[in-house]
Amino acid sequence: MQEPSNTYESWLLKSYIDQMSDQHSSQALSWRRLYLSRAKLKASSRTSALLSGFAMVAMVEVQIDQPNQHIPDALLVVFGVCTTLLVTVHLLALMISTCIVPNIESVSNVHNITAVNESPHEKMKWCVEVAWICSTGIGIILFLAEIGILCWVKFYSISQNTAIASTCIVIPATLLFITFALVFYKRLVAHKYQRHEEGLKELDNLVTELNVNNDGHIRTV
Amino acid sequence: MQEPSNTYESWLLKSYIDQMSDQHSSQALSWRRLYLSRAKLKASSRTSALLSGFAMVAMVEVQIDQPNQHIPDALLVVFGVCTTLLVTVHLLALMISTCIVPNIESVSNVHNITAVNESPHEKMKWCVEVAWICSTGIGIILFLAEIGILCWVKFYSISQNTAIASTCIVIPATLLFITFALVFYKRLVAHKYQRHEEGLKELDNLVTELNVNNDGHIRTV
Amino acid sequence: MQEPSNTYESWLLKSYIDQMSDQHSSQALSWRRLYLSRAKLKASSRTSALLSGFAMVAMVEVQIDQPNQHIPDALLVVFGVCTTLLVTVHLLALMISTCIVPNIESVSNVHNITAVNESPHEKMKWCVEVAWICSTGIGIILFLAEIGILCWVKFYSISQNTAIASTCIVIPATLLFITFALVFYKRLVAHKYQRHEEGLKELDNLVTELNVNNDGHIRTV
Amino acid sequence: MQEPSNTYESWLLKSYIDQMSDQHSSQALSWRRLYLSRAKLKASSRTSALLSGFAMVAMVEVQIDQPNQHIPDALLVVFGVCTTLLVTVHLLALMISTCIVPNIESVSNVHNITAVNESPHEKMKWCVEVAWICSTGIGIILFLAEIGILCWVKFYSISQNTAIASTCIVIPATLLFITFALVFYKRLVAHKYQRHEEGLKELDNLVTELNVNNDGHIRTV
Amino acid sequence: MQEPSNTYESWLLKSYIDQMSDQHSSQALSWRRLYLSRAKLKASSRTSALLSGFAMVAMVEVQIDQPNQHIPDALLVVFGVCTTLLVTVHLLALMISTCIVPNIESVSNVHNITAVNESPHEKMKWCVEVAWICSTGIGIILFLAEIGILCWVKFYSISQNTAIASTCIVIPATLLFITFALVFYKRLVAHKYQRHEEGLKELDNLVTELNVNNDGHIRTV
Amino acid sequence: MQEPSNTYESWLLKSYIDQMSDQHSSQALSWRRLYLSRAKLKASSRTSALLSGFAMVAMVEVQIDQPNQHIPDALLVVFGVCTTLLVTVHLLALMISTCIVPNIESVSNVHNITAVNESPHEKMKWCVEVAWICSTGIGIILFLAEIGILCWVKFYSISQNTAIASTCIVIPATLLFITFALVFYKRLVAHKYQRHEEGLKELDNLVTELNVNNDGHIRTV
Repeated sequence: MQEPSNTYESWLLKSYIDQMSDQHSSQALSWRRLYLSRAKLKASSRTSALLSGFAMVAMVEVQIDQPNQHIPDALLVVFGVCTTLLVTVHLLALMISTCIVPNIESVSNVHNITAVNESPHEKMKWCVEVAWICSTGIGIILFLAEIGILCWVKFYSISQNTAIASTCIVIPATLLFITFALVFYKRLVAHKYQRHEEGLKELDNLVTELNVNNDGHIRTV
Repeated sequence: MQEPSNTYESWLLKSYIDQMSDQHSSQALSWRRLYLSRAKLKASSRTSALLSGFAMVAMVEVQIDQPNQHIPDALLVVFGVCTTLLVTVHLLALMISTCIVPNIESVSNVHNITAVNESPHEKMKWCVEVAWICSTGIGIILFLAEIGILCWVKFYSISQNTAIASTCIVIPATLLFITFALVFYKRLVAHKYQRHEEGLKELDNLVTELNVNNDGHIRTV
Repeated sequence: MQEPSNTYESWLLKSYIDQMSDQHSSQALSWRRLYLSRAKLKASSRTSALLSGFAMVAMVEVQIDQPNQHIPDALLVVFGVCTTLLVTVHLLALMISTCIVPNIESVSNVHNITAVNESPHEKMKWCVEVAWICSTGIGIILFLAEIGILCWVKFYSISQNTAIASTCIVIPATLLFITFALVFYKRLVAHKYQRHEEGLKELDNLVTELNVNNDGHIRTV
Repeated sequence: MQEPSNTYESWLLKSYIDQMSDQHSSQALSWRRLYLSRAKLKASSRTSALLSGFAMVAMVEVQIDQPNQHIPDALLVVFGVCTTLLVTVHLLALMISTCIVPNIESVSNVHNITAVNESPHEKMKWCVEVAWICSTGIGIILFLAEIGILCWVKFYSISQNTAIASTCIVIPATLLFITFALVFYKRLVAHKYQRHEEGLKELDNLVTELNVNNDGHIRTV
Repeated sequence: MQEPSNTYESWLLKSYIDQMSDQHSSQALSWRRLYLSRAKLKASSRTSALLSGFAMVAMVEVQIDQPNQHIPDALLVVFGVCTTLLVTVHLLALMISTCIVPNIESVSNVHNITAVNESPHEKMKWCVEVAWICSTGIGIILFLAEIGILCWVKFYSISQNTAIASTCIVIPATLLFITFALVFYKRLVAHKYQRHEEGLKELDNLVTELNVNNDGHIRTV
Repeated sequence: MQEPSNTYESWLLKSYIDQMSDQHSSQALSWRRLYLSRAKLKASSRTSALLSGFAMVAMVEVQIDQPNQHIPDALLVVFGVCTTLLVTVHLLALMISTCIVPNIESVSNVHNITAVNESPHEKMKWCVEVAWICSTGIGIILFLAEIGILCWVKFYSISQNTAIASTCIVIPATLLFITFALVFYKRLVAHKYQRHEEGLKELDNLVTELNVNNDGHIRTV
């Protein structure tokens, strides 16, 4: 009679499947999402502090008020708008990050497996995404544009060729950055779906195997 | 006679309920609040140091004393008031943070579960909240306003359109920031209450289940 | 005969009391004070480095030597005195911190429970307090005053209203800071005494309980 | 009869071989590659933030608009192009790093041996390489060129000999850097292949040894 | 016969004494000195980087070459000498720190109790002390003097009263700093000797106690 | 018959010798060298980033293009050459560090004792040494020279005495630095040889002792 061993073996496989599906299920996934949110927010806040700092220093220190410069008003408007937008976008990312990170950290320090549900990172998911896109998406592309505009402001009355040459680099670079962002996003989504499907397939295989084993045992018994 | 197994099972459930209510009770919650306070104060102090630094450098380095500039007195008053307020608010957050964090850290290093009660973070809760709101709430919104005013000061005699365009970004952004802060606060409060109710509901279910099991066992016995 | 169980029980309670009083006694308290001193000195040194840096940059970069400015001598004297005092106070905090922290760290890395007595933080307690008060107390209030004076120096010949408005913020803020510092200090002291009394009360209760139990056992025996 | 000891010994060797081949196989290699990707991206982001910051400050603060300077247009075009390219290249590295690092970190925090497959670092390998080459390869060489050009801009109207002397250092240095990069790359690749072959040889030796031992035992039995 | 228990007890006490004297002996003391050296060098390097940076920026940015300033040559000589000395002293501390710290860290990462003897921190003790004194002793006092001289350079042609008032703060502060350094050094030395003597006294007490116990046992036997 | 105890004792000593020689042998030494390389490269990269940053800011911000300055061409050539060389040397150290550190870190994170052989730090030893010497050796001495030259550039037309006085400090300091570097290098090498010899002597003593013990036992048997 192999009944008990069969029962034990099937129990083992079942518990393994449970564990595996658990790992792909709520608790484990919640923790991974918590770590991802935290890492995203921290990276956002660091990048934002850096870039908004450079933008502000550039605006304060660039000398545009000298008599021999005749910078057209439109250029200055674009410069002002770009700088303000850049600082605003990074401040938003910084604010969201400073608001949510302490709540996530207080949870991840508790060392309690169910504490993950107490973290606001799932409910605030859209905030995390906004901070993330503001900081790495819009923020970096605006910073690139800022460089181009800064060259126009700096070189307008001295050497317009410099400004034009600089623009010829900034425009394709901006397109490249947008392309990278989109490709990266697509790959990330594709990667997630693929992993998800592989997980389901593995579960399927295990279930099939278990059934076959059980059947085999049943037949041999 | 299932009496012993019944007793054991009910004991297990009871201990589980005790543990769960414990987890939602004073000690564990105190530690979580301690970690939250520490994380908030550290984030406050970092953000405050950064933003007050930029504000001070901006005030010292912006050139407003040149003869060809005729900046109206009211604008300069607003600029001075905003910068002073900004630095003061961030200094307050920095002072509170530097005062309370060492007391919290000396407790969290002791690795003694009851040491949490020795930490002043519960009594100083209002201080932590003040530092937090000064730094992320009022502080970031004042910084946004500072950017707008700085554009007026920088571009007043050269290109007022730039200053107007910049203001057109800063004003809706400020409203957005205030809205975000309020929505975030509401969500956080709602999240806390929901978690609290879910915890109570789980306890209720467990108690009911326990009673049913006991009743069932009693009946079968 | 319940004598041995009684003896064992009372021994357990005694050892528990010993342990509890131990925890409130020299060794544990020494470690906590060591961690508090270290945290205070590190926070002092960070705050001091930051604020003295800004003060020095402000003094070097502010332009006070232009012909169209007629800043009164008294104002400049106040500015110079405040800046020098600010940098001196923060340098003192930095020096004390850099001197004592390595001695504390070399002890806290040893992982030996009695090593705490080898640390100089108890003997140097007044140094730690001086660094702490220099950095967070006097230092931050001087920095606030520096902002007010800087506004006077920067705006004296352009817009005195700005300087007056700025002063109207700085003076109440300074009073608020001093009030906070005093309230914080009182609360901290009150908190310490309360914890101390609670600890003594718990010990009293345990001793009473033990006596009652012993009496009860003695009576039943 | 040495049969059981023989079986045990061969089992030990087999398990050792399994373990060793495991170590050289997918899982362990995946983790190592994950750590390598993370370390590369973090180093890239740090270097990029540093160098792009210096480049921007240099462009904003260098004074090229004074009347007594007659810098040729071509020089300014080269300066503008180099600065823009430098900032763009480092921004690309920063963007890639900020995008991928959180995904890697959320995996490396999970402490689950199979979680490595969920990390996008294998699929995004080309991104990591691009960030790496942008930051340490192209980025540092562009920075070196920037120094040379900056000397020309700064010293053109004052002392052209300085600019020439500086160029005489920059050009061989650039060649040295490119050589180092190529030699380093070759050595790294050679090192990888050698380690791989050594690993295979060790396995071969173990298998041979095992067979010999088994044969020996079989013969003695 | 209590002989074995006596032997065991005395062995226990002996081993305790051995352990205690061990703790006060070479190995443990070596580790403590290693940690102290590392902490000192790290603190030196951080303080030096900070202060030499400020000093260099101050020298580069202070404007001393304007026509309406008639700063006496002697003052400028003192300023140049002080700045150069300050940077040199901090560079020396930085160099020593960067040279020795990696050798200490490679030892402290090995987790081998005897590895401490391989560390060069005992042989290089004078280097550590030189770096320490350069950075915290001479370095901070020179920095204080630099502030005073900087006030003279900055305010010489505008307001000599400011420079005089500033000097009136710097001179007593310098004396205070030197006093603190000497008092601190004395206390540290006194603290070390006291700890040493207490350790010896404890050993003496233990030995006496052991002898008494042994005598007592011998007498009762 | 003390044969077994003898065998066991000698086996213990043998295994101890094996362990000790192991500790002084390849694996342990490899790990120590890995940690040393990593610590050296990290220290190099930090020092290089700091010093090259200061050098660049100094070159960009020093004002050498004013009409009332008649700085000789040779001085400017020396200034340009020194700055370019300084930045180049530190960039080389930074590049090497950023290239090799990730490969070392990916190995030191794996927690596999044999993984040390996969690290390229042994093959790249000359690179590590080059980075190390560039950063702490040549780099710091060039920085010291830069200070001296900067004083000449800054004070040439105002006060040549200042420049001369500054040079009088820089030259002996440079000699002191070179002396320190050489003495440090000699001591380090001497320290290594001494440790090596002590290790061998200890082994010798143990082997002798073991033989004596064995002989003793053999004789008594």
